[in-house]
Amino acid sequence: MQFHHHTLPNGLTILGETNPAALSVAVAFWVKTGSRDESPEVSGVTHFLEHMVFKGTGRRDAFAVNRDFSRIGADNNAWTSEENTVFHAVVLPEFLPEVVDVLADILRPSLRTDDFNTEKKVILDEIAKYQIQPGWAVYEHARKNFYAGHPLGNSVLGTTASVSALTRDQMADYYGRRYVAPNIVAIAAGNFDWDRFVELVGKACGEWPTGEAPRTQRTEPSGAGGVHVVTKPPDKVAQQYVTFIAPAAPADDDLGYAGALLSTVVGDYTGSRMFWALTDPGLADEAGMGIDECDAAGAYYTSFNCPPDRASECYGIVRKLLDEVQANGITEEEFQQAKTKILSRELRAGERTGRRMFTVAKDWVYRGEYRSVDDEMAAWDAVTMADVRAVLDRYPLTNQTVTAYGPLEQL
Amino acid sequence: MQFHHHTLPNGLTILGETNPAALSVAVAFWVKTGSRDESPEVSGVTHFLEHMVFKGTGRRDAFAVNRDFSRIGADNNAWTSEENTVFHAVVLPEFLPEVVDVLADILRPSLRTDDFNTEKKVILDEIAKYQIQPGWAVYEHARKNFYAGHPLGNSVLGTTASVSALTRDQMADYYGRRYVAPNIVAIAAGNFDWDRFVELVGKACGEWPTGEAPRTQRTEPSGAGGVHVVTKPPDKVAQQYVTFIAPAAPADDDLGYAGALLSTVVGDYTGSRMFWALTDPGLADEAGMGIDECDAAGAYYTSFNCPPDRASECYGIVRKLLDEVQANGITEEEFQQAKTKILSRELRAGERTGRRMFTVAKDWVYRGEYRSVDDEMAAWDAVTMADVRAVLDRYPLTNQTVTAYGPLEQL
Repeated sequence: MQFHHHTLPNGLTILGETNPAALSVAVAFWVKTGSRDESPEVSGVTHFLEHMVFKGTGRRDAFAVNRDFSRIGADNNAWTSEENTVFHAVVLPEFLPEVVDVLADILRPSLRTDDFNTEKKVILDEIAKYQIQPGWAVYEHARKNFYAGHPLGNSVLGTTASVSALTRDQMADYYGRRYVAPNIVAIAAGNFDWDRFVELVGKACGEWPTGEAPRTQRTEPSGAGGVHVVTKPPDKVAQQYVTFIAPAAPADDDLGYAGALLSTVVGDYTGSRMFWALTDPGLADEAGMGIDECDAAGAYYTSFNCPPDRASECYGIVRKLLDEVQANGITEEEFQQAKTKILSRELRAGERTGRRMFTVAKDWVYRGEYRSVDDEMAAWDAVTMADVRAVLDRYPLTNQTVTAYGPLEQL
Repeated sequence: MQFHHHTLPNGLTILGETNPAALSVAVAFWVKTGSRDESPEVSGVTHFLEHMVFKGTGRRDAFAVNRDFSRIGADNNAWTSEENTVFHAVVLPEFLPEVVDVLADILRPSLRTDDFNTEKKVILDEIAKYQIQPGWAVYEHARKNFYAGHPLGNSVLGTTASVSALTRDQMADYYGRRYVAPNIVAIAAGNFDWDRFVELVGKACGEWPTGEAPRTQRTEPSGAGGVHVVTKPPDKVAQQYVTFIAPAAPADDDLGYAGALLSTVVGDYTGSRMFWALTDPGLADEAGMGIDECDAAGAYYTSFNCPPDRASECYGIVRKLLDEVQANGITEEEFQQAKTKILSRELRAGERTGRRMFTVAKDWVYRGEYRSVDDEMAAWDAVTMADVRAVLDRYPLTNQTVTAYGPLEQL
């Protein structure tokens, strides 16, 4: 595998990782904008705009967009998060020109008022559907409680009120400010010719407007703390959901490796402390811990759900478990086991062009550097028990903001 | 990639596809037994036994089984279908000996009565959970209606009654008859040494008992036909679910390629006739068609779900669409587009050791042959429009057994 990068005169970044042994090529347009870049009055616009990108351009209506992906057998999709909007597709190597053509074209959407009004209903339906999913509802509440006004707590979907009030012109304004060339990365990973990719992207995107799209409020959130209880009637939400959030290392901080390793020991879906304490004995239906690495911020998410009559016991177990790890760290055996798990997962992910594309793009966007599979393996391998202690000291697992969602009135 | 195979003196088959460029190795034990091999009084025993395999052996208790997979970072799991029970894991190449050791060990489970009784509750919970999922319920009813007594209509989970009544000795008897060496395939795909794999499997499994495990009732089911309506109160099932089943080509029949291509044109999740007729205009929440290729049998599954007040309209659209395809076939453009989609998906799947492992095992179990990624590509490429007509003539899309599940009393 070989890395390449290039910047167009308008500021658009082109990245590539060529792998002649791959059977496919993965291509994405990565836009560095998400819900944290929204003002309250346009809450949800980033995600809504992601939908509108598939509704057509001057050259293609929505039917033609779908048809032109289908025709080349593309496995394509898009996602929106708090910080990024990404449009991606995996195709056979021979379809590189076609996939760049359609992806680049849709990134200049017409934003027709008719389509905007029709799609608004789809988005409102989506919000309504999510709202009744307790796993999603607890996550939204927990983020709001933890971030307490910091824009990272903004909802990706927005609210029924904010999306209903949104106008086509507000979206066009947001699009114009955020989808500028220097805020976009075009990337390919897999079996393709780098020079050809640069030529295709240059031709398709060379005239895109340039401009600055700075991100404001990049202070590191410290977490509001406290225990927040959202009570729902048992006929609406049968299980009790509890989510803990604590500050963790940002995406560009090397302490993040030790943090991810720690969260694997504490809360991996299998073989972790939480697995043995809650899942294996059947106390909780689901229990786990993960890490979210963001721009100048990071967070540990610890959560479980269980029947309401066991919630107090499970809550006590998790609190005690986190206190215990904070005080005494993890064992050498747990450390080695987690490292093997992570190395194995990372290496397997490295076999897929679609996964390499995301990893290479993320490293570039967040760390400003390229890392090969070998570089990543070496970085994981270099983590020590002392790093785990260091990350515990800097980001204590006891610094939690807790949100409960379900039938209980207190934990 | 290179293919290897070997048979142990006790009849156990060993398969391997070596790929020195892979970063991992996928290993599985594939047992040719499923719910179609059960008598009614032990309905659900195959799936229950799959769970018991993880509960421990003479050498390992359940904790040690989990720990020993975790220790090597294995991505492991198991599944049971109507025809197969498969235990699989993907690991880094260096852990080949460990993964063979633990997989082979768990295939000789102790089936302790205590564990059996505890796990029975888990299975009964699982059945209860699935029963209230309408997408699963309609599938179970539809299979029963279509197969009408043919053992392929047997439920994989079994019923609350059959699982409750099952004894540990009935399971041990089933295990003894079905888990004999000639009914098991050990397979590895990816980065590993073939001779070493044969040596490891030979050492671990060479003493396993031999015996015959024939499959009875291999007649090709013709489908019962008719429209079957299962009515549920709207406060239990809000949406209307409809599933059509029609006979299709068996797994070892080359007409299956044309059948799969046809079902992609008619009902792929995107860009298909059903997508444009039902999903894109928002008439149905989900709609699609797929193919299930079995031992001496095959079936097309066509299904949709939608609000009850639109069910009649959607049903009419699907009926008309199937009649139209049956009468006039598909267009050259649809044919090419579906072929590109399939080639692209197959080739991408070929990049992953875990997927290659399943494909190589399935080809061997069902067709008695090995096919490389190139062989498979060539077979897809060789499909013609005439093959599509031939498969329509032999397995008409009009020969449907329809099952409706939801609030409606008639379609």
